[in-house]
Amino acid sequence: EHYIICGFSRTGRQIAKEFWAEGVPFVVIDSEVESVQKAQGEGYMAYQGDATLDDTLLRVGIERAICIVAALPSDAENLYTVLSAKTLNPAIRAIARASTEEALQKLQRGGADAVISPYITGGKRMAAAALRPQVMDFVDGILTGADRQLYMEEFLLDPAFCPFVGQTLQKAKLRSQTGGLILAIRRIDGNLIGGPTGETVLMPGDTLICMGTAEQLRSLNQILGPIRSQKLRKPKSS
Amino acid sequence: EHYIICGFSRTGRQIAKEFWAEGVPFVVIDSEVESVQKAQGEGYMAYQGDATLDDTLLRVGIERAICIVAALPSDAENLYTVLSAKTLNPAIRAIARASTEEALQKLQRGGADAVISPYITGGKRMAAAALRPQVMDFVDGILTGADRQLYMEEFLLDPAFCPFVGQTLQKAKLRSQTGGLILAIRRIDGNLIGGPTGETVLMPGDTLICMGTAEQLRSLNQILGPIRSQKLRKPKSS
Ligand SMILES: [Ca+2]
Ligand SMILES: [Ca+2]
Repeated sequence: EHYIICGFSRTGRQIAKEFWAEGVPFVVIDSEVESVQKAQGEGYMAYQGDATLDDTLLRVGIERAICIVAALPSDAENLYTVLSAKTLNPAIRAIARASTEEALQKLQRGGADAVISPYITGGKRMAAAALRPQVMDFVDGILTGADRQLYMEEFLLDPAFCPFVGQTLQKAKLRSQTGGLILAIRRIDGNLIGGPTGETVLMPGDTLICMGTAEQLRSLNQILGPIRSQKLRKPKSS
Repeated sequence: EHYIICGFSRTGRQIAKEFWAEGVPFVVIDSEVESVQKAQGEGYMAYQGDATLDDTLLRVGIERAICIVAALPSDAENLYTVLSAKTLNPAIRAIARASTEEALQKLQRGGADAVISPYITGGKRMAAAALRPQVMDFVDGILTGADRQLYMEEFLLDPAFCPFVGQTLQKAKLRSQTGGLILAIRRIDGNLIGGPTGETVLMPGDTLICMGTAEQLRSLNQILGPIRSQKLRKPKSS
């Protein structure tokens, strides 16, 4: 049930910082001794090795990992790592960095579940900061960072645990019971319902995209899946 | 009333793409002939020159521009450009790219209104994709892209035009009138009210962070500031 970060460069360090802030168990792999020492100096579990090799991935427990993040210097290494990881553990979630649009497509074809290109992401963010500064400030403020006032979280509705499946939002009274806001519902068929209304019916397999304070999200988690409610990892304290 | 993009590298190209998709008037500056030709080949207005020089900035109309985006190869050039731009037009909004955390701080101190580091942004995005994939998909889907189903927009409440200033959200009935969702309100003192309720009172100078379809945001814009409602630039069509 751990995460693996491949590459402890600037991007990798930022990823580790985020995982650490949210109390996510993770291990770092880097081929350079100094990078490994730097990671260990931050208190992280780190292992020296070539992340493209099965042997290295097996040593960091790839078979039991939930997610691998490939942030190695080259696109070719990231692709190779994604393929190795998916072969050793087909259920693993793989996130990869791509430096070009071409690499982005190859990594997606190679089986990565999400591919991020810092240039594309950075450019989009700069454009958004230019066009809608308040929206960007707001979104930044709720997505990451340790001392957030508001959070976004996703909840999967499991009919075995959630008492509201089959009810309308109006009947479920999630807003008035918890204060949390349901921004959207992703149906099991992929359909997205943005800004659901009181008449929207909760269905089995729905993913609720919610926004609220730590307290509001904890209480949403409690009432949506009372039995499994310990599963909400974040926010870890307050 | 135009935007200036300095640097037509990978980041700069992405910014231009976003501006173009939203119908924002802009001009590109790049010191390389080939980059300028590439930009012109895309149909963009582009000018060859050194963006750190006052002369170049004056030629692209810095005095009448609303915003300058500095995406030049070096942090030093971006800082210099921000300072030049703010000197020539103190009211201009300046967005800059920084390659390191150190540069980020210097650019902020130099007067940039927003600074984006592709490494930090990319790392945060990769961490978020690992931890909350549905949330990230959702946020990506509403922030950028030409064929979006949902949008986010910000509306400044001007008491001279907005008939609801001083009223509660319940009385203003923005949701039931438009279908648009108010995610948060940024007060004029910087205070953020996340997930405002029916009792929240709209105040002069509030910025409303809203989410909805193109149609819903257009109708919100109409009823929030009926006289100035042509000001909503985005979404440009549909
Ligand atoms: Ca990296
Ligand atoms: Ca660039």
